[in-house]
Amino acid sequence: MTAKKILVMKFGGTSVETPDKIHQAAQRIKATFKKGYHVVAVVSAPGQMTDELISLAQEIVSNPDKRELDMLLATGEQVGIALLAMAIKARGIDAISLTGPQAGIVVDEFHTHARITHIRTSKLRQELHRGRVVIVAGFQGLNPREDVATLGRGGSDLTAVALSAVLKASHCDIFTDVRGIYTADPRLVPQARRIPRISYDEMLELASSGVQVMQPRSIEMAKKFNVPIRISHALDMQDTGSWIGEVKPMEEAVVTGLALDKNQVKVTLRDVMDRPGTAAELFTAIGQAQVNVDMIVQSAARGTTNDISFTVSREDLAPTLKILSSVQKKMRAGSVEKDPRVAKISIVGVGMKSHAGVAGKMFKVLADHRINIQMISTSEIKVSCIIAASQGKSALQLLHKAFFK
Amino acid sequence: MTAKKILVMKFGGTSVETPDKIHQAAQRIKATFKKGYHVVAVVSAPGQMTDELISLAQEIVSNPDKRELDMLLATGEQVGIALLAMAIKARGIDAISLTGPQAGIVVDEFHTHARITHIRTSKLRQELHRGRVVIVAGFQGLNPREDVATLGRGGSDLTAVALSAVLKASHCDIFTDVRGIYTADPRLVPQARRIPRISYDEMLELASSGVQVMQPRSIEMAKKFNVPIRISHALDMQDTGSWIGEVKPMEEAVVTGLALDKNQVKVTLRDVMDRPGTAAELFTAIGQAQVNVDMIVQSAARGTTNDISFTVSREDLAPTLKILSSVQKKMRAGSVEKDPRVAKISIVGVGMKSHAGVAGKMFKVLADHRINIQMISTSEIKVSCIIAASQGKSALQLLHKAFFK
Repeated sequence: MTAKKILVMKFGGTSVETPDKIHQAAQRIKATFKKGYHVVAVVSAPGQMTDELISLAQEIVSNPDKRELDMLLATGEQVGIALLAMAIKARGIDAISLTGPQAGIVVDEFHTHARITHIRTSKLRQELHRGRVVIVAGFQGLNPREDVATLGRGGSDLTAVALSAVLKASHCDIFTDVRGIYTADPRLVPQARRIPRISYDEMLELASSGVQVMQPRSIEMAKKFNVPIRISHALDMQDTGSWIGEVKPMEEAVVTGLALDKNQVKVTLRDVMDRPGTAAELFTAIGQAQVNVDMIVQSAARGTTNDISFTVSREDLAPTLKILSSVQKKMRAGSVEKDPRVAKISIVGVGMKSHAGVAGKMFKVLADHRINIQMISTSEIKVSCIIAASQGKSALQLLHKAFFK
Repeated sequence: MTAKKILVMKFGGTSVETPDKIHQAAQRIKATFKKGYHVVAVVSAPGQMTDELISLAQEIVSNPDKRELDMLLATGEQVGIALLAMAIKARGIDAISLTGPQAGIVVDEFHTHARITHIRTSKLRQELHRGRVVIVAGFQGLNPREDVATLGRGGSDLTAVALSAVLKASHCDIFTDVRGIYTADPRLVPQARRIPRISYDEMLELASSGVQVMQPRSIEMAKKFNVPIRISHALDMQDTGSWIGEVKPMEEAVVTGLALDKNQVKVTLRDVMDRPGTAAELFTAIGQAQVNVDMIVQSAARGTTNDISFTVSREDLAPTLKILSSVQKKMRAGSVEKDPRVAKISIVGVGMKSHAGVAGKMFKVLADHRINIQMISTSEIKVSCIIAASQGKSALQLLHKAFFK
C-alpha cells in the first residue's frame, strides 16, 4: 500500500435515492480521489428500498424467516453500490463495488441484527492499491454459515466506522440529509446552532436522547477505535458539518446540546408488593425480551405496596405489555397503565461534570413555565426529564433560550 | 445422499411476480416434496424486475460497466429466491435460498453473457441431504475473479438444465405462462394443438424459428446431457404440459409444429462485384460484430455484379447497417436497403428426413394463396420462408390447416 491517506465516505439512503443524487455522490468521490486520497465509499440502500423490501416480505408472510429476510434486504445495498460504481466509472475513475461479504466483513450468527466480529482487509487493500475507488455495501456481512446477514438499524454507519478503524482512515465522512449536529432540532428551535465539535460521550448521550443522526452503536465503536467522524450534508460540497471526536478540555461547553424524544411511552404497574427482589424480577423479565427500559421511578411505599413506572420506546410497548400481564398475575400486582402522551427532554454537556447547578437551572426553567416533571434521570454529562408530550416543543425552546444566550 | 430422486423445478419471472403466485409456486414445491422428491427450485427475477433494473442503470449512464450491471441485475433473482424460500418455510417445509455463487455455479469471465463452466455440487447436496428444499437463483454464477456474472437471455432455464444434468435429476420441470409447446402459436391459430412429446432437435429448430418458450442454448445443453424437460403452466397443477427429450422413431410426426417469427429484418446490399470471396468478406465482418445472420440469398449475376440479401433480428439491425456502410465503401458496392416488413414462417418435424414433398407442399399452399416467397432456407428437419409480414398470420393459419387436418 502506498502512503496515501485513506478516507471512508458514507452515503445514506437519501443521498443515493435518485440518479441526480448518485451523480452528485460520484462527483464528490471523484473530487476527494483527485485530492490524493484512497477512497472507500460505504453505501446504504437507495431511498426507501429497505422498507419496501420488508413490506414485500410481509406480503408473503407476516413473520418472515430471518435468514431469508437478510437474503432479501441485502439486495438493497447491492443496488446502491452497483449504481454508484457505474456513475464513478463513467467519470473516468476506476471503481469496483463489493458486497459486505466480498469486502471481508465478517459478522456473527444473529440474522437481522448481526454484529461485526472482524474484517478481512486483503481484498479491500488490493483494490485500493490498484488505484480503484472501492464501493462497499453497508449494513451487511458474511456469517460463519457463509450466509449474508444484516446489521440492523444504523448498520451502514457501523460498516463505515468499522472500515475506518481497520483501515486506519484519516476520518469517516458521513453524508446525510442534515448539516451536522445542532444545539437542538432546528425544525423545533429556529435559533438552534450547529455544533462544530462534539465529544463521543456527548454524542452518545444525544443519540440515546432522541437525536437520530447516528445510532449509539456506531458512536460507541468510533469512540473505542478513536475514529474521527464528520457529519455533513450530502448535497452541499461546501458544508463543514460537525465533527465527532476527542474534544480538548479547553473547548468544553457546559451544555452542548438539547434533545427531545417523543418516541417514549410511560408504563406503570400499580400496587407491587414492597419486598426485596420485586423490581429485579420485573426488569429481568423485560430485559429477556430484548426491551430496553430507559427511566424508572418507584413510588414511596404505601403500606405494603408501591407503584413502579418506567419508559420504553413505542416499538417495545407491545412486548412490554405482554410481559407485564404475566408478571402482574405472578406478583399479584394491581393494574397496568400506559401513557403514550409523554416526551423526554434532555440536556447534554461534558462541562456539567465540573459545573454544578445545571440540573437545578433546568428544573427551574421548567417549573417557572408550569411544566411538570414526571420522571428524572441523570448521568455525569446528561439530565433527562419526562414531561407531557404537549409541552415538549415549548420546553425545548425555553431551555434552548436559557442555555444558549 | 439418500436414494430419493431429485427434481429440478424452474419458475420463470411471471410465475413469481405477485405474492399469490409465489404462494402457488410454494404449494407446488411442497406437494412435490411430499411425494418424496429432493427438490431444487430455480427462480428468475420476479415480473419485470430485470428490465426495471436495466432502466435504472441506464438512468445513471447509457452504457453501464458490465461488471457493475451484473452486480445490479443479480439482485433480481436474489429477491425471487428469498421470497419463495419464505413462502415454503411458512408451510412447514425446511428450505434455504442460495445465490448462484452460493449454489456453486461457476461461470466464465464474460459479464452479462457468461457461460457456465462447471458446478460445485457439495453445498447443494449437503442441503438436500438435510431434508431441505434448495432454492437457487437462476441466471447467475461466480466467475474466476469471484464476481457475480449473469448468463444473459434464457439464463435461468440454463441454470435449471445445468443443475438437472449435474444432479442427475429425473427431469427438469419448467413452469411458465404457457401450457407447453403447440403446433402453432394458439394466439394466432385457434386450432393449434399441444405437442405432448417433441425431440430436442425439433425444439431447437422451433426455438430458432421464433418460438420463445425456451432459448436454444438451454435445449442444446439438455440434449447434450440428455435431460428430459417438461414445459407446463405455473398456475395449473393438473397441466401435463409438453415433454422435450429423446423421441422414439415410431412416434415421429412428419410435421411437428409451425413457427412465425416477426422479429426479422431483410437487408440488401446492391451491386456487389461478382468475384470469389466477396460474400465471405461481408459475412466475416458481420460475424465479428456478434450479429447472427439467419437467411442469405444472392441474386443471379447481372453482368459483373449481383445483389446480396440476408436477414438479421431487429436488435442487430443497427450494428449491421453500421458494418454495411463501411463494407459498401470498401467493396464499391451499390445502395444498402432494409425491409422490416418481413416475417419468417417455418415448418419443423423430424419426419421430414424420410418424407419427401413437405417443402413442396408448403410452397404450393403459399403459392395457391398468392403469398410470395422472398427467401428460403432448409435443414434436415425444417423449411423456412421469408414472406411479407402482413401475410404472416394467414400463412400460419393456412399451413396449419394443410399439415394438421
